Amino acid sequence: MGTLKKTSKDGKWEVLGSKELLHIDSRMTVSVQKVKLPDGRIIDDYCRVIFPDCVIIAAVTKDKKVVMSRQYLHGFGHASIVLPAGTMNKGEEPLQAAKRELLEETGYDSDDWTPLASPYSHTNYVGGKVNFFLARNARKLAEPDSKDLEEMEILLLNETSIIKNIKSGNIVSMGSITGLALAKLCFNAPGIRGMRRSTGPV
Amino acid sequence: MGTLKKTSKDGKWEVLGSKELLHIDSRMTVSVQKVKLPDGRIIDDYCRVIFPDCVIIAAVTKDKKVVMSRQYLHGFGHASIVLPAGTMNKGEEPLQAAKRELLEETGYDSDDWTPLASPYSHTNYVGGKVNFFLARNARKLAEPDSKDLEEMEILLLNETSIIKNIKSGNIVSMGSITGLALAKLCFNAPGIRGMRRSTGPV
Repeated sequence: MGTLKKTSKDGKWEVLGSKELLHIDSRMTVSVQKVKLPDGRIIDDYCRVIFPDCVIIAAVTKDKKVVMSRQYLHGFGHASIVLPAGTMNKGEEPLQAAKRELLEETGYDSDDWTPLASPYSHTNYVGGKVNFFLARNARKLAEPDSKDLEEMEILLLNETSIIKNIKSGNIVSMGSITGLALAKLCFNAPGIRGMRRSTGPV
Repeated sequence: MGTLKKTSKDGKWEVLGSKELLHIDSRMTVSVQKVKLPDGRIIDDYCRVIFPDCVIIAAVTKDKKVVMSRQYLHGFGHASIVLPAGTMNKGEEPLQAAKRELLEETGYDSDDWTPLASPYSHTNYVGGKVNFFLARNARKLAEPDSKDLEEMEILLLNETSIIKNIKSGNIVSMGSITGLALAKLCFNAPGIRGMRRSTGPV
């Protein structure tokens, strides 16, 4: 992570106490914190929701297609196209989890991995840490063998098709859009070509 | 929303029952569902977490800068640069909430609004519906008057600076990255210039 120049507005909130409200095995913990703001105000019930850390992978083949899957997403209540993703197993490193999830969900593998970013999924409540990866030169090694509840159809999409599917609402996952954007905007992934340099006053 | 061609893999899960586990006023409801998968399997405890619907705004000025704010985010535990965003008030329409949040948080207004997409924040657990908007020709009307707990510093960032800040980890919110990507990838927002058309086999 880079660092922003510190200002007086950056003061961390001080956690004065925390109480667990709900804990569901490895899936979720909800608690409330008593926090003290930099201006001295005390907030008694600031929520915190912890999900397991997870990985999301933008894997790009040599012929510049992104490996995605089409599946029913119960949260949305309909089918959508998503990047391969999943929660990390206990003791797993993010890269290890990313390689495992890509292989299990799609049958693809790569030996050219770049970590992109690792934000938390909820800016206020934490959510879970989401580790994004770019995998270049992805190639099919095996048939998918996901243990997930959802049935999946593997799709290889080029950039034009990805944009069309985002515009038409067929790619709606914030995780997937973030992964695609990080690969495209920051790393000019093959298949997700470089941006035109702006010539205006931007 | 566009529609994907239906396949046998699209079968909705049937909700056989639901039990509320936790409810915190308007902020959060956690429940478990008993669901039936298309292949007949019954899952007894599929989690559901509902946050309030919210709005995230990519507002671009006439001179092609995006209106963002720099603030401490307790979920991340450090300062970050984010798009203006907030939860919808009861009875509010998404556009109305977007206009209110942009004005309150940044003092900016616009009369050229485009809805971008409205995904849910969690593909499996629902989260909340996140309504993304593009506001063109944003102009400053007033001083910010946010009721938020966080102190904010308003920043006007051009495209080069946005990409630099994403790469260096100073823009880490998935909501903000998604909003920027939707504006850039799908709508070639002014200030977030058009993409180079790929000439390769993508």
